[in-house]
Amino acid sequence: MSDDAMAQPFVKELVNQVRAHDTFGAWGKKTDAEVISPYIVDKEARKALPMMANPDPDTIWRVEMFYNAVALTIERRSGLVAQPIMKMHHEGFGRVVLTVGRLVAVSKHLRDVHRFGFVDHAKLNEAGEKLVAEAVELLERFPEAARA
Amino acid sequence: MSDDAMAQPFVKELVNQVRAHDTFGAWGKKTDAEVISPYIVDKEARKALPMMANPDPDTIWRVEMFYNAVALTIERRSGLVAQPIMKMHHEGFGRVVLTVGRLVAVSKHLRDVHRFGFVDHAKLNEAGEKLVAEAVELLERFPEAARA
Repeated sequence: MSDDAMAQPFVKELVNQVRAHDTFGAWGKKTDAEVISPYIVDKEARKALPMMANPDPDTIWRVEMFYNAVALTIERRSGLVAQPIMKMHHEGFGRVVLTVGRLVAVSKHLRDVHRFGFVDHAKLNEAGEKLVAEAVELLERFPEAARA
Repeated sequence: MSDDAMAQPFVKELVNQVRAHDTFGAWGKKTDAEVISPYIVDKEARKALPMMANPDPDTIWRVEMFYNAVALTIERRSGLVAQPIMKMHHEGFGRVVLTVGRLVAVSKHLRDVHRFGFVDHAKLNEAGEKLVAEAVELLERFPEAARA
């Protein structure tokens, strides 16, 4: 992993988001790359995961932080607050919605959440940026609903 | 409670919603009024409830059914599907959102969910109808977002 990958805006936002929850300072000495290493699931690691399993609370928390970072990046780009709401079934499927005013800026059905992860930091950044770009496009398309 | 109250459209939808989940036929012989009696919390019953408590799963389920009935009534009036997503903290606060296309048709912050209930059927109907009316108004105001 290169330093460039860690400097990508979405990845940086995610690092901030995870660090913000480090209320006991347990990760104070960890590098940014270490802090978000659980998000990187390469092909070998993925193979080692069972096809079906119930995600543990840490995994669900990780997914929540990912969508929090999406929400904060949307806010940074648009100046409008995005509120996340995520509902997970314990078997690992669910739905996440980010609302901006009266607009559904992001809506994703989740499944196989125990396998949530990205092959590398570039793919992680790409996934976050894609959601942000789609949301910003919707905000431009429906500005009144977003401000209602 | 009069028969009139039970014939009110939102109350009827809620009865249907609750009965639809009666997969074991346990409530087959119950009247409509009996089926939704847990929604009626009169002043005396409310007094008996603690100010703060963690809601049990039955109570949370009841709140979910209430918002499902709101979603179905919106659909019946507008022809557009409303999808509910509810996230509860175990201490009894949370948020519920009903989305129609890209529109947030209903958004409510919930608290003291263990005290969820209405003094009578008329108030129950009124509360449901109020949410439906606000949602339908938003659908008329933002038809494109609702159909996106």
